[in-house]
Amino acid sequence: MTGRFITLEGGEGTGKSTQVARLAERLRSTGREVIVTREPGGTPGAEAIRALLVQGEVDRWDALSETLLLNAARHDHVERVIRPALARGAWVVCDRYVDSTLVYQGIAKGLDVELLVRLHEQATGPLWPDLTLVLDVPAAIGLARAASRRGDETRFEAHDAAFHERLRAGFLDLAARYAGRCAVIDAIVDVDAVSAAIWQAVAGRLAP
Amino acid sequence: MTGRFITLEGGEGTGKSTQVARLAERLRSTGREVIVTREPGGTPGAEAIRALLVQGEVDRWDALSETLLLNAARHDHVERVIRPALARGAWVVCDRYVDSTLVYQGIAKGLDVELLVRLHEQATGPLWPDLTLVLDVPAAIGLARAASRRGDETRFEAHDAAFHERLRAGFLDLAARYAGRCAVIDAIVDVDAVSAAIWQAVAGRLAP
Repeated sequence: MTGRFITLEGGEGTGKSTQVARLAERLRSTGREVIVTREPGGTPGAEAIRALLVQGEVDRWDALSETLLLNAARHDHVERVIRPALARGAWVVCDRYVDSTLVYQGIAKGLDVELLVRLHEQATGPLWPDLTLVLDVPAAIGLARAASRRGDETRFEAHDAAFHERLRAGFLDLAARYAGRCAVIDAIVDVDAVSAAIWQAVAGRLAP
Repeated sequence: MTGRFITLEGGEGTGKSTQVARLAERLRSTGREVIVTREPGGTPGAEAIRALLVQGEVDRWDALSETLLLNAARHDHVERVIRPALARGAWVVCDRYVDSTLVYQGIAKGLDVELLVRLHEQATGPLWPDLTLVLDVPAAIGLARAASRRGDETRFEAHDAAFHERLRAGFLDLAARYAGRCAVIDAIVDVDAVSAAIWQAVAGRLAP
């Protein structure tokens, strides 16, 4: 039996990384093999592409260059890590995936979302997640959280507050469009409560 | 009046770089502004992508990852260098462009050429060259020439001889498909004779 593919999505400072680790731990406690990964990245090649994307000036790339780089990284990640893992029955928990591209490069930066969907399908086979958890907090709170752990990957955080509000609205729009695979998780509550809500969504939809 | 966009194409060791420089010099002698550039590359971002593409092991990327990276680099190059130069009336002479992608990733590595054409058109607007000069030599001779100047950009040269013969045949196929913008130049003769043939093709088609 093939594994399941779960993605966590949301704007800056929504707590995705913490919840990815907690979800993986809980899934492992059921005896499953669990792969934890992230985008852009997840393979040596894709991590090299990530470095091009997340460092440097805000205007280093326009939205279409970003999209093509993201799809190059995603193709490598899907073919070399995600698809082989699913094929051997492992569950894959991934911090960001296609919805981040649809929201950042599409809804927030103005590229045609249908073009982005076509590119995604060409680049990945297509491979859509079995379940996408959209972590939702008001943009101002997310940005304040993100600022407290700021490192050198600041290129996407350097946009203005209105941009981050568009991101939040975009993720909620996508969760409605793809209601069959998406669950919105209120992530303004404390971290244990978010973990509990995530586990309820996973257990209810995928019966791990 | 907008400038003209000339690309030089061909396999390894066909003498493209030398002829690009000579053609640019000759065009400058007519009083024109001439931009000399290359792919993958031509902008800081695209050169960073080039470094990912040309270094490392042969199997570092599969053909679709290469294609997406090449299109990311090409989009940046077209939008930031080539299109602005043409708009102000400069002529652009570029060492490799879309035909290299159609041949390397399509004909030689097996991706669907029509998919590659669609990706090119999405990534560039589309922007096709006004004139493409296909420099043609037998693969064995080209490889021997390339070996004599080998640096660290060896990833594409590291394929076998049959691969390089497919490249040569692929460029000739494309020159036939796109006969309206392509001229095949016999590049086995001495460098001055190649330059003369190139100038004849440019003068005959573009009336510089």
